[in-house]
Amino acid sequence: MNQKLINELISAIGSDNVLYEDADLVSYSYDATPDMPSQQPDAVVTPETTEHVIEIAKIADKYNIPIYTRGAGTNLSGGTIPIDKGIVLLMVKMDKIIEVDAENLTATVEPGVIIQDLNDAVSKHGLIYPPDPGTVKTATMGGSVAENSGGLRGLKYGVTKHYIMGLEIVLADGKLVKFGGKTVKNVTAYDFVKLFTGSEGTLGIITKIIVKLIPAPETRKSMLASFKTLDDAGNAVSSIVAGKVIPATLEILDNTTINVVENYVKAGLPTDAEAVLLIEVDGIPEVVEKEAKVVEEVVKNNNGDIQIAQTDAERDKLWAARRAALPALAQVSPTTVLEDATVPRSEITAMLRELKRIAEKYDLRIGTFGHAGDGNLHPTILTDERNEEEMKRVHKAVDEIFEAALKLGGTLTGEHGIGMAKMRYLGWELGEEGLEVMRKVKEALDPKYLLNPGKMVQRSE
Amino acid sequence: MNQKLINELISAIGSDNVLYEDADLVSYSYDATPDMPSQQPDAVVTPETTEHVIEIAKIADKYNIPIYTRGAGTNLSGGTIPIDKGIVLLMVKMDKIIEVDAENLTATVEPGVIIQDLNDAVSKHGLIYPPDPGTVKTATMGGSVAENSGGLRGLKYGVTKHYIMGLEIVLADGKLVKFGGKTVKNVTAYDFVKLFTGSEGTLGIITKIIVKLIPAPETRKSMLASFKTLDDAGNAVSSIVAGKVIPATLEILDNTTINVVENYVKAGLPTDAEAVLLIEVDGIPEVVEKEAKVVEEVVKNNNGDIQIAQTDAERDKLWAARRAALPALAQVSPTTVLEDATVPRSEITAMLRELKRIAEKYDLRIGTFGHAGDGNLHPTILTDERNEEEMKRVHKAVDEIFEAALKLGGTLTGEHGIGMAKMRYLGWELGEEGLEVMRKVKEALDPKYLLNPGKMVQRSE
Repeated sequence: MNQKLINELISAIGSDNVLYEDADLVSYSYDATPDMPSQQPDAVVTPETTEHVIEIAKIADKYNIPIYTRGAGTNLSGGTIPIDKGIVLLMVKMDKIIEVDAENLTATVEPGVIIQDLNDAVSKHGLIYPPDPGTVKTATMGGSVAENSGGLRGLKYGVTKHYIMGLEIVLADGKLVKFGGKTVKNVTAYDFVKLFTGSEGTLGIITKIIVKLIPAPETRKSMLASFKTLDDAGNAVSSIVAGKVIPATLEILDNTTINVVENYVKAGLPTDAEAVLLIEVDGIPEVVEKEAKVVEEVVKNNNGDIQIAQTDAERDKLWAARRAALPALAQVSPTTVLEDATVPRSEITAMLRELKRIAEKYDLRIGTFGHAGDGNLHPTILTDERNEEEMKRVHKAVDEIFEAALKLGGTLTGEHGIGMAKMRYLGWELGEEGLEVMRKVKEALDPKYLLNPGKMVQRSE
Repeated sequence: MNQKLINELISAIGSDNVLYEDADLVSYSYDATPDMPSQQPDAVVTPETTEHVIEIAKIADKYNIPIYTRGAGTNLSGGTIPIDKGIVLLMVKMDKIIEVDAENLTATVEPGVIIQDLNDAVSKHGLIYPPDPGTVKTATMGGSVAENSGGLRGLKYGVTKHYIMGLEIVLADGKLVKFGGKTVKNVTAYDFVKLFTGSEGTLGIITKIIVKLIPAPETRKSMLASFKTLDDAGNAVSSIVAGKVIPATLEILDNTTINVVENYVKAGLPTDAEAVLLIEVDGIPEVVEKEAKVVEEVVKNNNGDIQIAQTDAERDKLWAARRAALPALAQVSPTTVLEDATVPRSEITAMLRELKRIAEKYDLRIGTFGHAGDGNLHPTILTDERNEEEMKRVHKAVDEIFEAALKLGGTLTGEHGIGMAKMRYLGWELGEEGLEVMRKVKEALDPKYLLNPGKMVQRSE
């Protein structure tokens, strides 16, 4: 059977595009998510065209074999891991930037394009593609659309879905559909562009993406605010927004993270602060001046100290510190369990307090950083997968983190997706009725559960 | 049967909430769309609570009777017209603004709230709810979510769906589901908030809405630019955006519309201009000054004349003229067929030329106005429903308008929805495969086609 499948794949898309050696199969049996089950696939295929994808889907449909679509594998919810035999569909060879249309402020790309490469291409036109997940230099456009990636600029600029205008999709049965386009307004049909965005490869295979671009901000100003208490930091976050300033970026690092980062990159962070906020405002110079002043005032009113980056080098150092948060935490211990429980902005302080309580209760080291302006926190548990007893406490702590977020009117995931990692919590937020809606839509488009099975939506028993 | 249904409805939601006299049934057998078939419903019900809606859905499900959910009936695609016996579900009594949460920049409302009433409530907090369809003073929030209404500020601020963060929905079988919430980021589950937004009452009944608010712009400046040729006007539109200015509003009126409006409201529009642009930039004073200058320069470079409103009265006069476009055109002839074919911004001039050609070909009077910055035009055919021969030409012209829009990379509807009016064109844009995806999702959630049947999605034969 396996050999028959391999042969059929080779004859459809060429032997250069079908990998089935053990080394290849091992390489694509995991992604960036720790503590996940996995399984080696039958084959890894690298389509070069939409027609290839259609052929692969038809073969998978014929043999009832799962397809795990994959970009760079940087996701953090186990979204690309094979859980059964099947085909890993690696989109990295479909990496053409088809068009940058400066007049309509759009770009059209294949799914294998690296996010940063798109940004480099549009920057020549004075434009940006705002979504910037931490993995912007490695993650693919297709992966970020499938996961609806967030990033550091979500507060002012929104997340991936706010920039996806059109999609070309291969369905589970190999049929090709196109939704949306280059028009700013479009209410033709149900909003399938949004339905497929963030569907984590479970409803269709994305083969082409039309994105919205925006003019690059003329200038920006970065600030570092340090606080003696979590309450002061949390209140400052709310007050900045209440002061009618929507910063491009409004990030928080707690004391644990500050110390680990400072030890790792020596950015000059205040290691005795209970929390720091990293804030960037952008726009035309007059706006930036005005907004920076509001931020400065709010920080002082909330008993904080503020430093304003005076040079590009100082600014880059600040943001390098923020981007180092995850790698810095990751090198402290063998296993890093990173969550993205999200709460309404007004509940940031309450959530930070809950995280502190949970860390103490389960005797765990939790560093928290994240997008304070969005209420999108990343509590990161520093642990060791090999320590069974500790992992039990980790799992209990994670349960309690989600429970706390939901109790505060929050959600299970702000930007990492459900994947495998959060499937068992989904009913807590959606209820049985909501899960049923998920299943009904999944089964309408992929009745045999061939597209990324075991992720996001639980098959009914 | 009818009496049994009426009795059951009365016992479920009270006799005050069930209308079934002929006069009532006639009143709710049409909406703002001309030239549509219709049918009197069995009953018109006015639920006061979500529980009432659940009861009504269960009764409809039991008797296999259609439900036509309706707000103010201002839609322009026949979206609320009963095409079969059944229940008109009139949401106007569920009109509470449940909460304005200034800290999280959200409001929670029932579907019967008038859009303008929400704006009045949030303006006290220095906030706005940006979507502003022409009918902002009469249309309901529920209706505008179901139709994903656009409006005059779409270019900079987006349309309704960009502001919908959470929905409570009663499904066809009476089950209650909630998706989204107050968090800025949320990737839990498929994006059902967006799927139900713009689904025109065909997938579920909206009973609660959480919207995003934004800080009100500090100031604004309105300008009137007149051009001797359509090309100059179209080029100016593209050049403004290429100049990195995204005006809040960028509207166009063609010569026919200018003359009809001027005759109607005496706003001082230049009746000899081939087209005028109405432009508003907003933000902090420094931004407004800077952007207004760019606009002025672009208009002059494209052989246009520009007038800048110097007082609030002058500004209000300009926008009153724009808002008068539809009523002014409507009073010229007994029947006004208003379309909203939409093209990429760069194709505005080409589309205007196509409209002129089509008007000549079918010997019809077409006034065109609309949201030039969005590529969202409103060609408006001035005709008479009683003139059979002319209506044949109208229908042919409409066909050709959509054909032209699609050929230019556009879409059938930018903001009015598919409803009944555009159903037969849907396949032109989506293809057979796309229609099938529509049907599959519809049937997954409403297998008996009880929710607003005959709209948006065509039952397979």
